Amino acid sequence: MPPPAAPKSGDALFASVERVNAELFTLTYGAIVRQLLTDLEEVEEVNKQLDQMGYNIGTRLVDEFLAKSNVSRCADFKETADVIAKLGFKMFLGVTATVTNWDAEGTSCSFVLEDNPLVDFVELPDTCQGLQYCNVLSGVIRGALEMVSMKTEVTWVRDMLRGDDAYEMRVKLTKQVPEEYPYKDDD
Amino acid sequence: MPPPAAPKSGDALFASVERVNAELFTLTYGAIVRQLLTDLEEVEEVNKQLDQMGYNIGTRLVDEFLAKSNVSRCADFKETADVIAKLGFKMFLGVTATVTNWDAEGTSCSFVLEDNPLVDFVELPDTCQGLQYCNVLSGVIRGALEMVSMKTEVTWVRDMLRGDDAYEMRVKLTKQVPEEYPYKDDD
Repeated sequence: MPPPAAPKSGDALFASVERVNAELFTLTYGAIVRQLLTDLEEVEEVNKQLDQMGYNIGTRLVDEFLAKSNVSRCADFKETADVIAKLGFKMFLGVTATVTNWDAEGTSCSFVLEDNPLVDFVELPDTCQGLQYCNVLSGVIRGALEMVSMKTEVTWVRDMLRGDDAYEMRVKLTKQVPEEYPYKDDD
Repeated sequence: MPPPAAPKSGDALFASVERVNAELFTLTYGAIVRQLLTDLEEVEEVNKQLDQMGYNIGTRLVDEFLAKSNVSRCADFKETADVIAKLGFKMFLGVTATVTNWDAEGTSCSFVLEDNPLVDFVELPDTCQGLQYCNVLSGVIRGALEMVSMKTEVTWVRDMLRGDDAYEMRVKLTKQVPEEYPYKDDD
Protein backbone atom coordinates (compact mmCIF):
# COMPACT_ATOMS: atom_id res chain seq x y z
CA MET A 1 0.00 0.00 0.00
CA PRO A 2 1.43 3.41 -0.83
CA PRO A 3 2.12 5.74 2.09
CA PRO A 4 -0.65 8.28 2.74
CA ALA A 5 -0.31 11.38 0.57
CA ALA A 6 1.04 14.50 2.23
CA PRO A 7 -1.50 17.27 2.86
CA LYS A 8 -1.76 19.59 -0.09
CA SER A 9 -0.83 23.25 0.04
CA GLY A 10 -3.69 25.73 0.00
CA ASP A 11 -2.80 26.83 -3.51
CA ALA A 12 -2.61 23.28 -4.83
CA LEU A 13 -5.88 22.48 -3.13
CA PHE A 14 -7.65 25.48 -4.60
CA ALA A 15 -6.24 24.65 -8.03
CA SER A 16 -7.56 21.08 -7.75
CA VAL A 17 -11.23 21.93 -7.31
CA GLU A 18 -13.90 23.02 -9.75
CA ARG A 19 -14.43 26.75 -9.58
CA VAL A 20 -16.87 29.42 -10.68
CA ASN A 21 -16.55 33.16 -11.04
CA ALA A 22 -16.38 34.91 -7.67
CA GLU A 23 -18.58 37.78 -8.81
CA LEU A 24 -21.35 35.37 -9.74
CA PHE A 25 -21.07 33.84 -6.28
CA THR A 26 -21.07 37.24 -4.60
CA LEU A 27 -24.14 38.42 -6.48
CA THR A 28 -25.92 35.14 -5.85
CA TYR A 29 -25.25 35.39 -2.14
CA GLY A 30 -26.41 39.01 -2.21
CA ALA A 31 -29.63 37.85 -3.82
CA ILE A 32 -30.24 35.44 -0.92
CA VAL A 33 -29.68 38.12 1.67
CA ARG A 34 -32.02 40.49 -0.12
CA GLN A 35 -34.65 37.78 -0.42
CA LEU A 36 -34.44 36.97 3.28
CA LEU A 37 -34.68 40.65 4.21
CA THR A 38 -37.81 40.94 2.10
CA ASP A 39 -39.37 37.77 3.49
CA LEU A 40 -38.45 37.93 7.14
CA GLU A 41 -38.41 41.66 7.84
CA GLU A 42 -36.59 41.26 11.17
CA VAL A 43 -32.83 41.61 10.71
CA GLU A 44 -32.25 39.32 13.67
CA GLU A 45 -34.22 36.57 11.93
CA VAL A 46 -32.19 37.06 8.76
CA ASN A 47 -28.98 36.67 10.78
CA LYS A 48 -30.25 33.38 12.21
CA GLN A 49 -31.33 32.10 8.83
CA LEU A 50 -27.99 32.92 7.19
CA ASP A 51 -26.19 31.16 10.02
CA GLN A 52 -28.39 28.09 9.65
CA MET A 53 -27.90 28.09 5.89
CA GLY A 54 -24.14 28.23 6.45
CA TYR A 55 -24.34 25.42 8.99
CA ASN A 56 -26.11 23.19 6.47
CA ILE A 57 -23.54 24.04 3.81
CA GLY A 58 -20.64 23.44 6.22
CA THR A 59 -21.84 19.95 7.09
CA ARG A 60 -21.58 19.13 3.37
CA LEU A 61 -18.38 20.96 2.52
CA VAL A 62 -16.36 19.21 5.19
CA ASP A 63 -16.59 15.99 3.20
CA GLU A 64 -15.12 17.58 0.10
CA PHE A 65 -12.45 19.14 2.24
CA LEU A 66 -11.41 15.88 3.88
CA ALA A 67 -11.56 13.99 0.59
CA LYS A 68 -9.38 16.43 -1.32
CA SER A 69 -7.00 17.95 1.20
CA ASN A 70 -5.30 14.76 2.44
CA VAL A 71 -5.52 16.27 5.91
CA SER A 72 -5.74 13.57 8.55
CA ARG A 73 -6.74 13.92 12.18
CA CYS A 74 -5.59 17.16 13.81
CA ALA A 75 -3.75 16.89 17.13
CA ASP A 76 -5.74 19.62 18.82
CA PHE A 77 -7.97 22.62 18.28
CA LYS A 78 -4.97 24.81 17.48
CA GLU A 79 -3.96 22.62 14.61
CA THR A 80 -7.58 22.46 13.44
CA ALA A 81 -7.78 26.23 13.41
CA ASP A 82 -4.60 26.49 11.36
CA VAL A 83 -5.90 23.98 8.85
CA ILE A 84 -9.15 25.90 8.44
CA ALA A 85 -7.36 29.21 8.05
CA LYS A 86 -4.73 28.08 5.58
CA LEU A 87 -6.49 25.31 3.69
CA GLY A 88 -10.22 25.56 4.33
CA PHE A 89 -10.69 29.19 3.44
CA LYS A 90 -8.35 28.80 0.50
CA MET A 91 -10.08 25.74 -0.87
CA PHE A 92 -13.52 27.32 -0.88
CA LEU A 93 -13.08 31.06 -1.16
CA GLY A 94 -9.59 31.33 -2.62
CA VAL A 95 -8.36 33.47 0.28
CA THR A 96 -6.54 32.67 3.50
CA ALA A 97 -7.29 33.78 7.03
CA THR A 98 -4.97 34.65 9.89
CA VAL A 99 -5.45 32.83 13.19
CA THR A 100 -4.94 35.12 16.14
CA ASN A 101 -6.07 36.20 19.62
CA TRP A 102 -5.81 32.78 21.26
CA ASP A 103 -7.06 32.60 24.83
CA ALA A 104 -4.89 31.00 27.52
CA GLU A 105 -6.74 27.66 27.37
CA GLY A 106 -6.29 27.31 23.63
CA THR A 107 -10.03 26.95 23.09
CA SER A 108 -10.89 30.34 21.58
CA CYS A 109 -9.29 32.10 18.67
CA SER A 110 -10.10 34.50 15.88
CA PHE A 111 -9.96 34.15 12.12
CA VAL A 112 -9.12 37.47 10.54
CA LEU A 113 -9.93 37.96 6.87
CA GLU A 114 -8.55 40.91 4.96
CA ASP A 115 -10.05 39.80 1.70
CA ASN A 116 -13.61 38.55 1.72
CA PRO A 117 -15.19 37.68 -1.63
CA LEU A 118 -18.63 37.64 -0.06
CA VAL A 119 -18.82 41.39 0.35
CA ASP A 120 -17.56 42.80 -2.93
CA PHE A 121 -19.93 45.58 -4.07
CA VAL A 122 -21.92 45.37 -0.84
CA GLU A 123 -23.02 48.39 1.15
CA LEU A 124 -25.50 48.09 3.96
CA PRO A 125 -28.34 50.59 3.92
CA ASP A 126 -29.09 52.34 7.20
CA THR A 127 -32.10 50.13 7.77
CA CYS A 128 -29.85 47.05 7.94
CA GLN A 129 -27.28 48.11 10.45
CA GLY A 130 -27.84 45.05 12.63
CA LEU A 131 -27.36 42.69 9.73
CA GLN A 132 -24.57 40.15 10.09
CA TYR A 133 -24.07 39.90 6.37
CA CYS A 134 -21.38 37.22 6.54
CA ASN A 135 -23.19 34.93 8.92
CA VAL A 136 -23.16 32.22 6.30
CA LEU A 137 -19.39 31.93 6.81
CA SER A 138 -19.58 31.58 10.56
CA GLY A 139 -22.33 29.02 10.03
CA VAL A 140 -20.14 27.05 7.63
CA ILE A 141 -17.32 26.88 10.19
CA ARG A 142 -19.72 25.79 12.93
CA GLY A 143 -21.32 23.14 10.71
CA ALA A 144 -18.04 21.79 9.41
CA LEU A 145 -16.48 21.56 12.87
CA GLU A 146 -19.51 19.82 14.28
CA MET A 147 -19.06 17.10 11.67
CA VAL A 148 -15.59 16.44 13.07
CA SER A 149 -16.91 16.31 16.63
CA MET A 150 -16.19 19.86 17.76
CA LYS A 151 -19.08 21.93 19.01
CA THR A 152 -18.31 25.62 18.68
CA GLU A 153 -19.83 29.04 19.04
CA VAL A 154 -18.86 31.35 16.20
CA THR A 155 -19.50 35.08 16.25
CA TRP A 156 -18.36 38.13 14.31
CA VAL A 157 -16.40 40.62 16.37
CA ARG A 158 -15.22 42.86 13.55
CA ASP A 159 -17.02 43.53 10.28
CA MET A 160 -15.83 45.97 7.62
CA LEU A 161 -19.42 46.47 6.45
CA ARG A 162 -20.04 47.94 9.87
CA GLY A 163 -17.00 50.18 9.78
CA ASP A 164 -14.34 47.94 11.31
CA ASP A 165 -10.89 47.56 9.79
CA ALA A 166 -11.12 43.81 9.05
CA TYR A 167 -13.38 40.80 9.29
CA GLU A 168 -12.79 38.93 12.53
CA MET A 169 -14.67 35.80 13.41
CA ARG A 170 -14.36 34.47 16.95
CA VAL A 171 -14.48 30.70 17.32
CA LYS A 172 -14.95 29.21 20.76
CA LEU A 173 -14.70 25.46 21.26
CA THR A 174 -17.45 24.54 23.70
CA LYS A 175 -17.34 20.77 23.59
CA GLN A 176 -15.18 18.18 21.96
CA VAL A 177 -17.11 14.96 21.52
CA PRO A 178 -14.83 11.93 21.70
CA GLU A 179 -15.27 9.74 18.66
CA GLU A 180 -16.44 6.42 19.99
CA TYR A 181 -16.20 4.33 16.91
CA PRO A 182 -13.01 3.68 15.03
CA TYR A 183 -14.75 3.82 11.66
CA LYS A 184 -15.83 6.67 9.47
CA ASP A 185 -19.54 6.57 8.82
CA ASP A 186 -20.08 6.85 5.09
CA ASP A 187 -23.88 6.79 5.09
CA MET B 1 -2.77 54.78 -28.99
CA PRO B 2 -2.26 51.01 -28.98
CA PRO B 3 -4.62 48.95 -31.14
CA PRO B 4 -7.57 47.46 -29.25
CA ALA B 5 -6.72 44.16 -27.59
CA ALA B 6 -7.99 41.01 -29.27
CA PRO B 7 -10.86 39.22 -27.54
CA LYS B 8 -9.58 36.71 -25.01
CA SER B 9 -10.16 32.99 -25.31
CA GLY B 10 -12.67 31.47 -22.91
CA ASP B 11 -9.92 29.72 -20.99
CA ALA B 12 -7.83 32.86 -20.66
CA LEU B 13 -10.88 34.78 -19.61
CA PHE B 14 -11.83 32.27 -16.94
CA ALA B 15 -8.24 32.22 -15.69
CA SER B 16 -8.24 36.01 -15.41
CA VAL B 17 -11.15 36.33 -12.98
CA GLU B 18 -11.40 35.77 -9.25
CA ARG B 19 -12.96 32.41 -8.53
CA VAL B 20 -14.50 30.45 -5.70
CA ASN B 21 -15.14 26.77 -5.19
CA ALA B 22 -17.94 25.49 -7.41
CA GLU B 23 -19.37 23.25 -4.68
CA LEU B 24 -19.76 26.24 -2.37
CA PHE B 25 -21.61 28.04 -5.14
CA THR B 26 -23.80 25.04 -5.88
CA LEU B 27 -24.76 24.58 -2.25
CA THR B 28 -25.38 28.30 -1.82
CA TYR B 29 -27.67 28.34 -4.81
CA GLY B 30 -29.42 25.24 -3.48
CA ALA B 31 -29.98 27.08 -0.21
CA ILE B 32 -31.73 29.90 -2.08
CA VAL B 33 -34.01 27.54 -3.93
CA ARG B 34 -34.92 25.75 -0.73
CA GLN B 35 -35.56 29.05 1.02
CA LEU B 36 -37.85 30.21 -1.77
CA LEU B 37 -39.74 26.92 -1.78
CA THR B 38 -40.31 27.29 1.95
CA ASP B 39 -41.35 30.93 1.70
CA LEU B 40 -43.43 30.98 -1.43
CA GLU B 41 -44.98 27.51 -1.48
CA GLU B 42 -46.10 27.79 -5.12
CA VAL B 43 -43.48 26.30 -7.43
CA GLU B 44 -44.58 28.69 -10.18
CA GLU B 45 -43.78 31.65 -7.93
CA VAL B 46 -40.36 30.18 -7.14
CA ASN B 47 -39.67 29.87 -10.87
CA LYS B 48 -40.52 33.55 -11.35
CA GLN B 49 -38.42 34.64 -8.42
CA LEU B 50 -35.37 32.68 -9.60
CA ASP B 51 -35.73 34.18 -13.04
CA GLN B 52 -35.97 37.69 -11.61
CA MET B 53 -32.96 37.06 -9.38
CA GLY B 54 -31.02 35.91 -12.42
CA TYR B 55 -32.15 38.95 -14.38
CA ASN B 56 -30.81 41.25 -11.68
CA ILE B 57 -27.53 39.36 -11.57
CA GLY B 58 -27.24 39.39 -15.37
CA THR B 59 -27.61 43.16 -15.55
CA ARG B 60 -24.54 43.38 -13.29
CA LEU B 61 -22.43 40.60 -14.76
CA VAL B 62 -22.54 42.03 -18.26
CA ASP B 63 -20.31 44.88 -17.12
CA GLU B 64 -17.64 42.53 -15.84
CA PHE B 65 -17.92 40.55 -19.03
CA LEU B 66 -17.47 43.56 -21.32
CA ALA B 67 -14.68 44.97 -19.18
CA LYS B 68 -12.64 41.77 -19.11
CA SER B 69 -13.38 39.96 -22.36
CA ASN B 70 -12.24 42.66 -24.84
CA VAL B 71 -15.30 41.74 -26.87
CA SER B 72 -16.53 44.69 -28.87
CA ARG B 73 -19.86 45.12 -30.62
CA CYS B 74 -21.24 41.94 -32.15
CA ALA B 75 -22.37 42.09 -35.77
CA ASP B 76 -25.64 40.29 -35.18
CA PHE B 77 -27.55 38.04 -32.82
CA LYS B 78 -25.72 34.99 -34.15
CA GLU B 79 -22.38 36.40 -33.17
CA THR B 80 -23.79 37.45 -29.81
CA ALA B 81 -25.01 33.93 -29.16
CA ASP B 82 -21.60 32.49 -29.99
CA VAL B 83 -19.88 34.92 -27.67
CA ILE B 84 -22.23 33.99 -24.81
CA ALA B 85 -21.78 30.29 -25.41
CA LYS B 86 -18.01 30.26 -25.73
CA LEU B 87 -16.97 33.18 -23.52
CA GLY B 88 -19.87 34.11 -21.26
CA PHE B 89 -20.60 30.67 -19.85
CA LYS B 90 -16.90 29.98 -19.56
CA MET B 91 -16.12 33.20 -17.75
CA PHE B 92 -18.77 32.73 -15.10
CA LEU B 93 -19.38 29.01 -14.75
CA GLY B 94 -16.20 27.54 -16.19
CA VAL B 95 -18.13 25.54 -18.80
CA THR B 96 -19.03 26.19 -22.42
CA ALA B 97 -22.35 25.80 -24.17
CA THR B 98 -23.17 24.68 -27.68
CA VAL B 99 -25.31 26.96 -29.84
CA THR B 100 -27.75 25.03 -31.96
CA ASN B 101 -31.27 24.79 -33.39
CA TRP B 102 -31.29 28.16 -35.14
CA ASP B 103 -34.56 29.16 -36.72
CA ALA B 104 -34.64 30.40 -40.32
CA GLU B 105 -34.74 34.07 -39.32
CA GLY B 106 -31.66 33.80 -37.12
CA THR B 107 -33.55 35.16 -34.11
CA SER B 108 -34.02 32.02 -32.01
CA CYS B 109 -31.44 29.50 -30.95
CA SER B 110 -30.65 27.07 -28.16
CA PHE B 111 -27.79 26.90 -25.72
CA VAL B 112 -27.08 23.30 -24.81
CA LEU B 113 -25.12 22.59 -21.65
CA GLU B 114 -23.75 19.16 -20.95
CA ASP B 115 -22.04 20.21 -17.77
CA ASN B 116 -23.96 22.43 -15.39
CA PRO B 117 -22.31 23.28 -12.07
CA LEU B 118 -25.61 24.54 -10.70
CA VAL B 119 -27.11 21.10 -10.37
CA ASP B 120 -24.38 18.97 -8.81
CA PHE B 121 -25.89 16.88 -5.97
CA VAL B 122 -29.39 18.08 -6.83
CA GLU B 123 -32.39 15.80 -7.00
CA LEU B 124 -35.89 17.15 -7.22
CA PRO B 125 -38.40 15.62 -4.83
CA ASP B 126 -41.74 14.59 -6.33
CA THR B 127 -43.41 17.65 -4.87
CA CYS B 128 -41.19 19.93 -6.96
CA GLN B 129 -41.69 18.48 -10.40
CA GLY B 130 -42.70 21.82 -11.90
CA LEU B 131 -39.62 23.56 -10.54
CA GLN B 132 -37.36 25.21 -13.11
CA TYR B 133 -34.31 24.80 -10.94
CA CYS B 134 -31.94 26.58 -13.33
CA ASN B 135 -34.14 29.60 -13.95
CA VAL B 136 -31.44 31.82 -12.52
CA LEU B 137 -29.33 31.05 -15.60
CA SER B 138 -32.03 31.93 -18.10
CA GLY B 139 -32.66 35.09 -16.09
CA VAL B 140 -28.98 36.01 -16.25
CA ILE B 141 -28.96 35.67 -20.04
CA ARG B 142 -32.13 37.76 -20.36
CA GLY B 143 -30.79 40.46 -18.02
CA ALA B 144 -27.37 40.62 -19.63
CA LEU B 145 -28.79 40.82 -23.16
CA GLU B 146 -31.21 43.55 -22.18
CA MET B 147 -28.25 45.65 -21.04
CA VAL B 148 -26.87 45.44 -24.56
CA SER B 149 -30.19 46.40 -26.10
CA MET B 150 -31.58 42.98 -26.92
CA LYS B 151 -34.92 42.01 -25.48
CA THR B 152 -35.28 38.27 -25.32
CA GLU B 153 -37.50 35.51 -24.06
CA VAL B 154 -35.54 32.68 -22.51
CA THR B 155 -37.07 29.33 -21.63
CA TRP B 156 -35.85 25.86 -20.73
CA VAL B 157 -36.80 23.20 -23.23
CA ARG B 158 -34.70 20.35 -21.85
CA ASP B 159 -33.68 19.82 -18.23
CA MET B 160 -31.74 16.82 -16.94
CA LEU B 161 -33.33 17.24 -13.51
CA ARG B 162 -36.60 16.47 -15.24
CA GLY B 163 -35.25 13.46 -17.05
CA ASP B 164 -34.02 14.99 -20.29
CA ASP B 165 -30.62 14.16 -21.75
CA ALA B 166 -29.16 17.68 -21.56
CA TYR B 167 -29.88 21.24 -20.49
CA GLU B 168 -31.28 23.23 -23.37
CA MET B 169 -32.19 26.87 -23.02
CA ARG B 170 -34.13 28.49 -25.85
CA VAL B 171 -33.35 32.16 -26.50
CA LYS B 172 -35.68 34.16 -28.72
CA LEU B 173 -34.78 37.70 -29.71
CA THR B 174 -38.00 39.70 -29.54
CA LYS B 175 -36.74 43.22 -30.01
CA GLN B 176 -33.43 44.83 -30.76
CA VAL B 177 -33.42 48.38 -29.51
CA PRO B 178 -31.23 50.56 -31.68
CA GLU B 179 -28.63 52.39 -29.63
CA GLU B 180 -29.32 56.05 -30.22
CA TYR B 181 -26.27 57.58 -28.72
CA PRO B 182 -22.79 56.92 -29.97
CA TYR B 183 -21.27 56.93 -26.51
CA LYS B 184 -21.10 54.30 -23.84
CA ASP B 185 -22.82 55.43 -20.69
CA ASP B 186 -20.44 54.90 -17.81
CA ASP B 187 -22.69 56.14 -15.01
